[in-house]
Amino acid sequence: MGNDNHPGEFDIIARYFAPLAAAELGGLGLSDDAAILKPPPGRELIVTTDTLSAGVHFPVDEDPADIAARLIGVNLSDLAAMGATPWVYTLALALADNTGEDFIKAFADGLARHQGTHAIHLIGGDTVATKGPLTLTLTAIGTVAEGQALRRSGAAAGDDIYVSGTIGDAALGLKVLNGELSGLTPPLGEHLLDRYHRPQPRVALGSRLYAVASAAIDISDGLVADLGHVATASGVVASIDINNVPLSEAAIAAVTLGPALKELAITGGDDYELLFTAPPSQAAAIERLSQELELELSRIGTIDEDTGHAGAVRVIDETGAKISLKNSGYRHF
Amino acid sequence: MGNDNHPGEFDIIARYFAPLAAAELGGLGLSDDAAILKPPPGRELIVTTDTLSAGVHFPVDEDPADIAARLIGVNLSDLAAMGATPWVYTLALALADNTGEDFIKAFADGLARHQGTHAIHLIGGDTVATKGPLTLTLTAIGTVAEGQALRRSGAAAGDDIYVSGTIGDAALGLKVLNGELSGLTPPLGEHLLDRYHRPQPRVALGSRLYAVASAAIDISDGLVADLGHVATASGVVASIDINNVPLSEAAIAAVTLGPALKELAITGGDDYELLFTAPPSQAAAIERLSQELELELSRIGTIDEDTGHAGAVRVIDETGAKISLKNSGYRHF
Repeated sequence: MGNDNHPGEFDIIARYFAPLAAAELGGLGLSDDAAILKPPPGRELIVTTDTLSAGVHFPVDEDPADIAARLIGVNLSDLAAMGATPWVYTLALALADNTGEDFIKAFADGLARHQGTHAIHLIGGDTVATKGPLTLTLTAIGTVAEGQALRRSGAAAGDDIYVSGTIGDAALGLKVLNGELSGLTPPLGEHLLDRYHRPQPRVALGSRLYAVASAAIDISDGLVADLGHVATASGVVASIDINNVPLSEAAIAAVTLGPALKELAITGGDDYELLFTAPPSQAAAIERLSQELELELSRIGTIDEDTGHAGAVRVIDETGAKISLKNSGYRHF
Repeated sequence: MGNDNHPGEFDIIARYFAPLAAAELGGLGLSDDAAILKPPPGRELIVTTDTLSAGVHFPVDEDPADIAARLIGVNLSDLAAMGATPWVYTLALALADNTGEDFIKAFADGLARHQGTHAIHLIGGDTVATKGPLTLTLTAIGTVAEGQALRRSGAAAGDDIYVSGTIGDAALGLKVLNGELSGLTPPLGEHLLDRYHRPQPRVALGSRLYAVASAAIDISDGLVADLGHVATASGVVASIDINNVPLSEAAIAAVTLGPALKELAITGGDDYELLFTAPPSQAAAIERLSQELELELSRIGTIDEDTGHAGAVRVIDETGAKISLKNSGYRHF
């Protein structure tokens, strides 16, 4: 693990980050130039990198443990979308002038908690100074049985479209955070805030999806945009019924207060649920998987043949009428 | 490869970065959530991550192609120090408000050149906005025959200490850049500037070192500091003769102008040469390797037993007198 030799940075690595590498011998205690990893036999590697920068991807005053949750969450969500089991990660920290040791301690404690939850280990990285805001980059490596990685490109006409959990909570949570959504009872507001601050990557689901799914993606840009990515990669079109999109109790309350928020729920980002497609013959297996994982898996629409508009996503209401969306894309925080 | 959905960022990935991933199928054209890699049989993986931030690790007005050279150089230098052959990399770009498309094009062209030189390929990454200066993180993955990774910890009493190439050019080049070193002829000044701007990772040497070396590290913090890392990891002490440290013609000219610069040469960073130790029985093999690679490999000192000061580095002059250094550490740019 490198550093800039600023006073205390060797100490910081030794004190806060080396313990996160203790259980993976290949990390060499973060004391060498690089890590040495022996790939598990019969497995392929899945590699993903995500960067979060203060003031863009999270508020500048975000709780350090929540920044750790988000950094781990967004990366493991990408692994989950490919069907991979998390293995190891590297961490690059560009520390702002005002990033103090208290922050680093709380951040490392947060990482430690998520390492435990997901059985991953730090193996290396870099700690440097930046003249700008705190910027963090995590590269996660997972493994998947050979040939069993899930892709965005496998959706076929006739497949059903599913999502895990509930949709739109994070985007609504951001509204709560910014004071743009009031009138919810405190527990419901808290639920949405929690979903925004602490994304839960669907790792257990991802590692089980290969047996049933034809394509998968994680919902980071928003349900409609990410479904569009699957449709584009697969050369198909997709239709979803907005009333089949699963909403949490808190999201239902929010939409009751402001009906326009329903569009935000299906276009807002940062949910980190999984979206996947599967042939109808898999419906019973998916229902069993849902029960086994105690995780809601909802059928929200179908994949159709490309009729000259590959990548198109049609959103319909209960009457079958097409809903026209003001924003199908998404901007973070 | 992710992005922030800012206008044009999908285009930028498609136009400038997807071509860098074209030859490695596992990168999936940067179009999926993550890359899929099949590890080569019988090889271990070497993983390293380095971050560069404008205004800290390179001047804010640095040529984009030189930033690419430095980013690739510092990471592949870590792989070389472990004896690895470069394989693939991910790239995380946190773009400043004023990072324009011209910059990105020139940066990507620079990456393409180094990919060709080192036979590496982009497989994924992230492109985001930051409210601070341009900050780049590269994670490089190399491979090495099982059990043949070089470590810092293998140096033993009686071993000789070697360095590749010439030492101190980059630190002297930074002095030239900052206008703190004048009086050199233009070609000599240019040579030092080139060594600062465009580090050459010693990849070919690194992949051949396992047969001869007992320990290795790349010189990023400075010769004395990095030798100290080897001595600490190996539980030994090290002695080098300052007159055996190989200097370029330009560095000799600089030291003639300012004799105090000799200390800078052995303590300044960013050379990205390799430092390694080897038993005396390997001297002839090292000489042959030097001829074969057409790369100077200089014996500069010896490893001694720990006499209660493990990690200590002694620098002596031609009379055997100990030279006391004002700064043995190093700060970048």
